[in-house]
Amino acid sequence: MLEKLREHIEKIVPLTDGEFAFVSDHFTVQQHKKRAFLIEEGKSVKYTYFVISGLLMLVHNDDQGKQHIAAFAMEDWWESDFLAFYTQTKATMSLQCLEDTEVACLSLEGYDKLCAGLPKMEHFFLKKANGGHIASQQRILSFLTSNAKDRCEQLLKRYPSLFQRVPKTLLASYLGVSRETLSRIWRSS
Amino acid sequence: MLEKLREHIEKIVPLTDGEFAFVSDHFTVQQHKKRAFLIEEGKSVKYTYFVISGLLMLVHNDDQGKQHIAAFAMEDWWESDFLAFYTQTKATMSLQCLEDTEVACLSLEGYDKLCAGLPKMEHFFLKKANGGHIASQQRILSFLTSNAKDRCEQLLKRYPSLFQRVPKTLLASYLGVSRETLSRIWRSS
Repeated sequence: MLEKLREHIEKIVPLTDGEFAFVSDHFTVQQHKKRAFLIEEGKSVKYTYFVISGLLMLVHNDDQGKQHIAAFAMEDWWESDFLAFYTQTKATMSLQCLEDTEVACLSLEGYDKLCAGLPKMEHFFLKKANGGHIASQQRILSFLTSNAKDRCEQLLKRYPSLFQRVPKTLLASYLGVSRETLSRIWRSS
Repeated sequence: MLEKLREHIEKIVPLTDGEFAFVSDHFTVQQHKKRAFLIEEGKSVKYTYFVISGLLMLVHNDDQGKQHIAAFAMEDWWESDFLAFYTQTKATMSLQCLEDTEVACLSLEGYDKLCAGLPKMEHFFLKKANGGHIASQQRILSFLTSNAKDRCEQLLKRYPSLFQRVPKTLLASYLGVSRETLSRIWRSS
């Protein structure tokens, strides 16, 4: 099941079988049912997750009990409450399965050992972190500059499969638009 | 002038004098006057910048000519149009000096050579990239969950000196509020 992880890593750094065995030793694989929580707000965050199959949603519930969607994560994506994970503080977001999901789990201790033991992996994680930083900078820019219609169209263009897999109510929340607005844009695109 | 850079790096990884000499070789130092542009939209992005002294603003101008502020950067911060820098594409944002500013400049070639030649620096950049990713995730969350007043108060608490140094009109734009709203919150806090 970790073959997907190997393919994913080898897009950036090639690995020998021995190196991949070393990498694998730091991961555990978990299967979760739809609606299960991998991270719960207020609790500690054990892992950063690589999605082997399925779909996750990173959400924050505000004081009024309103749900805000920070991110979706599907196959080949990494997700966690990164602030809580890296600083070993309590989660301010929850990570929930929107489908039956299989993940490869890496603890902070495992992450540090992997980086120290295999410089290639430190290089791999640097590339992924820079990619994540870029994606976040782009999303901030889209909040500042784009109207709802443009944000929908950008998302549809970049991740068409999200529109097939994520309930429209959740997509609308992620984009910061009403369910009705999303449907109108969706029909006209 | 690169002593500040050394102190900054040594908060994460200690360096010998020889190692720091190697690091220094990859940077150039530039002085810029207030209002000068380090990056211009539509042009290529040569460097990622470490701020030795002064203050920068990362902005995007939309099709209607409206200015959106993605970030401020002051002493000890790194800033660039990271998408354009890492992928060597044209800038979609500009980076402008709000004060006379001194920066240490690192090219992508220099960045790659530094990481390959000194694993400690790859480790340093990974820590910084993870920190940047966390900060972006927090800012996205603040857009989703906070009202203008909360965003102002968070910023004031975290970076009080920004309120002294950045013109209120620009702070209001960064926070996505009107100049009047910001003044009202500012007076009452």
